[in-house]
Amino acid sequence: MADKQFVKEIADINENFTQWYTDVVLKTQLVDYGPVKGTMVIRPYGYAIWENIQRELDARLKATGHSNAYFPMLIPISLLNKEAEHVEGFAPEVAVVNVAGGEQLAEPLVVRPTSETIICSLYSKWINSYRDLPLKLNQWANVVRWEKTTRPFLRTSEFLWQEGHTAHATREESVKETLDMLQLYSDFARDVLAMPTFTGRKSEKEKFAGAEETYGMEAMMLDGKSLQAGTTHHFGQKFSRAYDIQFLDKDSTHKYVWQSSWGVTTRLIGALIMAHGDQRGLVLPPKVAPVQAVVIPVAAHKEGVLQQAELISEQLRAAGLRVQLDVRDQSPGWKFNEWEMKGVPLRVEIGPRDIENGVATCSRRDTCDKFTLPLNGIAQQAVRLMDEIQSNMYAKSLAFRDSHVQLAHNMDELGAVLDNKCFAKVVWDKDPACEALFKEKFQATVRVMLDEPPFQDVCTCCGNKSDDLVVALVARAY
Amino acid sequence: MADKQFVKEIADINENFTQWYTDVVLKTQLVDYGPVKGTMVIRPYGYAIWENIQRELDARLKATGHSNAYFPMLIPISLLNKEAEHVEGFAPEVAVVNVAGGEQLAEPLVVRPTSETIICSLYSKWINSYRDLPLKLNQWANVVRWEKTTRPFLRTSEFLWQEGHTAHATREESVKETLDMLQLYSDFARDVLAMPTFTGRKSEKEKFAGAEETYGMEAMMLDGKSLQAGTTHHFGQKFSRAYDIQFLDKDSTHKYVWQSSWGVTTRLIGALIMAHGDQRGLVLPPKVAPVQAVVIPVAAHKEGVLQQAELISEQLRAAGLRVQLDVRDQSPGWKFNEWEMKGVPLRVEIGPRDIENGVATCSRRDTCDKFTLPLNGIAQQAVRLMDEIQSNMYAKSLAFRDSHVQLAHNMDELGAVLDNKCFAKVVWDKDPACEALFKEKFQATVRVMLDEPPFQDVCTCCGNKSDDLVVALVARAY
Repeated sequence: MADKQFVKEIADINENFTQWYTDVVLKTQLVDYGPVKGTMVIRPYGYAIWENIQRELDARLKATGHSNAYFPMLIPISLLNKEAEHVEGFAPEVAVVNVAGGEQLAEPLVVRPTSETIICSLYSKWINSYRDLPLKLNQWANVVRWEKTTRPFLRTSEFLWQEGHTAHATREESVKETLDMLQLYSDFARDVLAMPTFTGRKSEKEKFAGAEETYGMEAMMLDGKSLQAGTTHHFGQKFSRAYDIQFLDKDSTHKYVWQSSWGVTTRLIGALIMAHGDQRGLVLPPKVAPVQAVVIPVAAHKEGVLQQAELISEQLRAAGLRVQLDVRDQSPGWKFNEWEMKGVPLRVEIGPRDIENGVATCSRRDTCDKFTLPLNGIAQQAVRLMDEIQSNMYAKSLAFRDSHVQLAHNMDELGAVLDNKCFAKVVWDKDPACEALFKEKFQATVRVMLDEPPFQDVCTCCGNKSDDLVVALVARAY
Repeated sequence: MADKQFVKEIADINENFTQWYTDVVLKTQLVDYGPVKGTMVIRPYGYAIWENIQRELDARLKATGHSNAYFPMLIPISLLNKEAEHVEGFAPEVAVVNVAGGEQLAEPLVVRPTSETIICSLYSKWINSYRDLPLKLNQWANVVRWEKTTRPFLRTSEFLWQEGHTAHATREESVKETLDMLQLYSDFARDVLAMPTFTGRKSEKEKFAGAEETYGMEAMMLDGKSLQAGTTHHFGQKFSRAYDIQFLDKDSTHKYVWQSSWGVTTRLIGALIMAHGDQRGLVLPPKVAPVQAVVIPVAAHKEGVLQQAELISEQLRAAGLRVQLDVRDQSPGWKFNEWEMKGVPLRVEIGPRDIENGVATCSRRDTCDKFTLPLNGIAQQAVRLMDEIQSNMYAKSLAFRDSHVQLAHNMDELGAVLDNKCFAKVVWDKDPACEALFKEKFQATVRVMLDEPPFQDVCTCCGNKSDDLVVALVARAY
């Protein structure tokens, strides 16, 4: 059967999740490999998801008082070098321009791996008075980080992202911004990507180079691994001291500003795929699906079928949906499989018998349920279904996640939990040696520290008592 | 007076247009200089204009069947080298990455100066059958071209743009696409930027490196110079042969595709400034103005003033306008001047006397007219004014342009026309020697060839008769 054939092209999701992912991203034409190792081409179907992510997230950023700007991509190496920890973290993975306009450059330029350094150099010029604060800018841009092991969307030499950079008059304000943005990301993941997340503080080891604190948003993939889906950083005054960003406060004294930065990337597309997909391919949440409903005429040569398919498409479009009318000359069965693989939330089939009965035959991608909808009022029903599918996908993901988190009271339990493809909650005394052991014994890491009371009075790893125990989420991660 | 003081900060538009431009872009905070020579930072007020341009243009590109995608920025130098004319044109101005991830690269990578080469390498893979055609992709991206003489927006080492790249089964189709996109750009300039343009074919000398034909859209700036505001290129099969992009046609033979590319850049922001500005600063068309209406309370401490200002702002916002309520503690006069400099189309002042009279005092930026609007129904009036200002700005620009184009029957006349800060229409026999003389004698160039019958039977430059005379637009240019 055509159905089987299609599925045959995609590796088994349970047996080889990695290959399943690669098959899906390539066969659905989300992405292709670029000519330089580790780079990706984002094809129209993948880029349309990114555009939907951008539109939804950008609106939330603007609604919370952020403005967009654009800073140069090439950064003089001396500028990068000003913040010691930052350069130490990023220097090993930068791409360097030495020649431009046919001449050797006096000073090498680094292709931005992130923009703190160049943005700080401008903030130092723009910020003079308390009246200039807070300064809350965001940039949509490409960045380059030379990575050894790469996979489309998850880790590529060049990727697209947004990076927010804010400056504030007080520590309280910048800490609040750092936490507010973490919440904004988490709300966005829930509402738009239908993806529940864990949020919390990162360990010292997992901190962003140059940050005082890093916070992360972690999402559970279907293979039980964690994917870091967004981070926010509090810099304190580290960068403002290194780049001399001072303001004259109301009390007539000069002070260094307090700063935050935060970002999400095209990695979110990888997260979507691995959080919602199934054996047939993609399952896309309606809010970001490039095509929300596909209309497929059956026996299109029969009188009235094509016209009815066009009419339905127009009605759905008029109701605000993103619609594709598929009139290509392949068979309906072939098209069903292709659009299922591409994760379109709602399929609407219309043939002579449907027309006779005054209905369309429909299929939901999230449940694969088949049902009919009356042609009369079909657009309103389709709109309602989008909400229902979006909610159902979130509920399903949440149930999956909640059933895949277990407590680990000791290292044996931790190993069992992880091998069971679950996240573990551990009690941790914050000793880096324990963190190293999680890695060494189980290839797992502390994803975030959770804001929960410890469920036992000793560290899961070393068994020591401590006054400063935290609950940490430990998982294998992308 | 405060008014005078503000104007004093900006160079005289008639005496020193270049300095006026620099003063305006910096003082209105559209832009700042980056740390690397020739780079610019697009500040929020400038970037918001770009976002409005993007939104309006992107909708037109999608409505004409184009999809967005994203291709890697770093191009292996061997890929760039495949099309001989193309590499000859761009090699002198590329930035080259030699080191990445701490290691010398086996093959240097070029930061894209434009993306034909990398996109063609993918098209070669993606296009196999006539069913894959036409392929009409667009990319919003940054590009780098190392320029010796730079000015914000007009010519910078890095700039933002969109680049469309299409592949077609026949020459007719790709020529039509090339001309359709030229028309789309010109309509966009007219409808959105309120800017009339001349469109036509470029001379051999001014062609894009690797194109068979280049078409340009030229706009007249207030100093009588021309600004190339957009170009479209027809490649014929030059790139498809160099990059081996073949398809199996319906007749079962393999054929090379026919291609076009086209782009507009952040330069359009420079065009806007120099086409509409005046001594007070920017004059922005409502369609792209970041702030369409500013509401300024006068005697804000008096009872009811602030509330009324807030109410008006809300009403204007609810009517779909981009509104700024300016409650900073500067004086109203200071604010009037600042927002005039920033080119906001409509200013709405509201003070105790206005409230008494049930009106708001308003000022249009395009005409500087002052008038009152009844508070009752003010939002509808403001929306109507946006249309009126947009139309009036276009009409004004068109009248300016039409009164600054003159025929030049010979070289003396050409010199006089150009010195009179006008564009010249010349009759040209297409001899490159004549084109060189325009440059040598008058620092002017052939901007485009117009689709008009020759107004005399000899070349304006050499006086020769020819069967192949064209009317060309000759001007000094940015």
